[in-house]
Amino acid sequence: MFPACAVRLRALHILRAPRGGVLPPAGERRAAQKLFSSEKVIHKDRSLPNSSWNSDLKLMFDQFMKKCEDGSWEHLPSYGSRSSQIVQYFKEVFLETKLRKDEQMLSQARLFTRSYEDGLGFEYVMFHNEQEKRTVCFCQGGPYLQGPPGFLHGGSIATIIDETASMTAIIAGGIVMTVNLNINYKRPIPLCSVVVINCQVDKIEGRKLFISCDVRSIDEKTLYSDATSLFIKLDPNKSLT
Amino acid sequence: MFPACAVRLRALHILRAPRGGVLPPAGERRAAQKLFSSEKVIHKDRSLPNSSWNSDLKLMFDQFMKKCEDGSWEHLPSYGSRSSQIVQYFKEVFLETKLRKDEQMLSQARLFTRSYEDGLGFEYVMFHNEQEKRTVCFCQGGPYLQGPPGFLHGGSIATIIDETASMTAIIAGGIVMTVNLNINYKRPIPLCSVVVINCQVDKIEGRKLFISCDVRSIDEKTLYSDATSLFIKLDPNKSLT
Repeated sequence: MFPACAVRLRALHILRAPRGGVLPPAGERRAAQKLFSSEKVIHKDRSLPNSSWNSDLKLMFDQFMKKCEDGSWEHLPSYGSRSSQIVQYFKEVFLETKLRKDEQMLSQARLFTRSYEDGLGFEYVMFHNEQEKRTVCFCQGGPYLQGPPGFLHGGSIATIIDETASMTAIIAGGIVMTVNLNINYKRPIPLCSVVVINCQVDKIEGRKLFISCDVRSIDEKTLYSDATSLFIKLDPNKSLT
Repeated sequence: MFPACAVRLRALHILRAPRGGVLPPAGERRAAQKLFSSEKVIHKDRSLPNSSWNSDLKLMFDQFMKKCEDGSWEHLPSYGSRSSQIVQYFKEVFLETKLRKDEQMLSQARLFTRSYEDGLGFEYVMFHNEQEKRTVCFCQGGPYLQGPPGFLHGGSIATIIDETASMTAIIAGGIVMTVNLNINYKRPIPLCSVVVINCQVDKIEGRKLFISCDVRSIDEKTLYSDATSLFIKLDPNKSLT
């Protein structure tokens, strides 16, 4: 749901229309900057190897970085031009809300999938293939993502699927909203193992983007989960009814 | 997926049949105890108010504790007889696996929904109504669960839905496995607000349990998400094919 909420807010008439690129007054910008002081966390690229990555995750990172050399694949940093635009977009939306009732807590805000110290939660990197409209995410689920002892929680699997599907939809459709996430759990995922989440745009019908995903072992022999996501593509410059 | 994985493991013939109550040898039990040293975290009841709870969450807690007085509702602690049985069950399953390749990381393991310090992640409490086959969960989503700035990540919503639906299924069906989780996102949830997740057993057909959920504001006027879950009820004493 990462890219989806502001658009959904507008579609549901919770918020006023966007400012069309006009920045809020300087005072409000400074307030927002303070409120989102966790922005410095965003500017550390968490998609690069750190000491908590196991050999499988490092191996897949190296393999796909090589595939990037001929331009067929693109490494997606944890921040960058796409992410920055989205963050800016949501800041403006947020400035227009009256939801800042707990500013002290909000000033601590972190992106859910990047909110743990290295190695404890989601360690992941994404690569995108433009020609195939496909994004792969290699994820090592750390010990704080436990469901039953020794295995990942179903919610943590849903989270990394949502994150990867959303990125695929953003690249294909720009500003989109998530409508549905439908997951089939087939096998449990051992804690601290590495899986690959493979998301693909199946079809685009008008404003609808249909994304399918599967979660497999890195040798692709074991299917852990599969899922479908439906997103709606929106034009932020048009009034939405 | 909390209650589901061991059963799924067996159904998929990944693991051998359960030991039928016979404990593993003492040496292995000690090894498991060491491996799951985070058990002490489980024995702090996280479903009781702490200083990070806001007034809405405290209010709903007090209201439902009063409803428990006549026995129509039951407060579900974050650990207790049900949880202990499930943890013990999974420990035995885990002992039979050969997945302990990263014991250092696993010794740090924590339940995903209880893995944050007070107030930063999921603060929640559940109550169950046996007659209505219904569980309600009041959840305050902290600043580390952020998706778009100011709002919860879709994965964190999926997580608390999965946790509440699983508990509903455990109470109704004992040992169950999650087959499907299907979520419709309708409105974004502001960070640090309190929502109520309402899960109900719609019907039981043979071994299938159909659970429906919705996520609303505590005044129930705003519908944020709805979802369905399908679980399979299993008899761990029978061979599963």
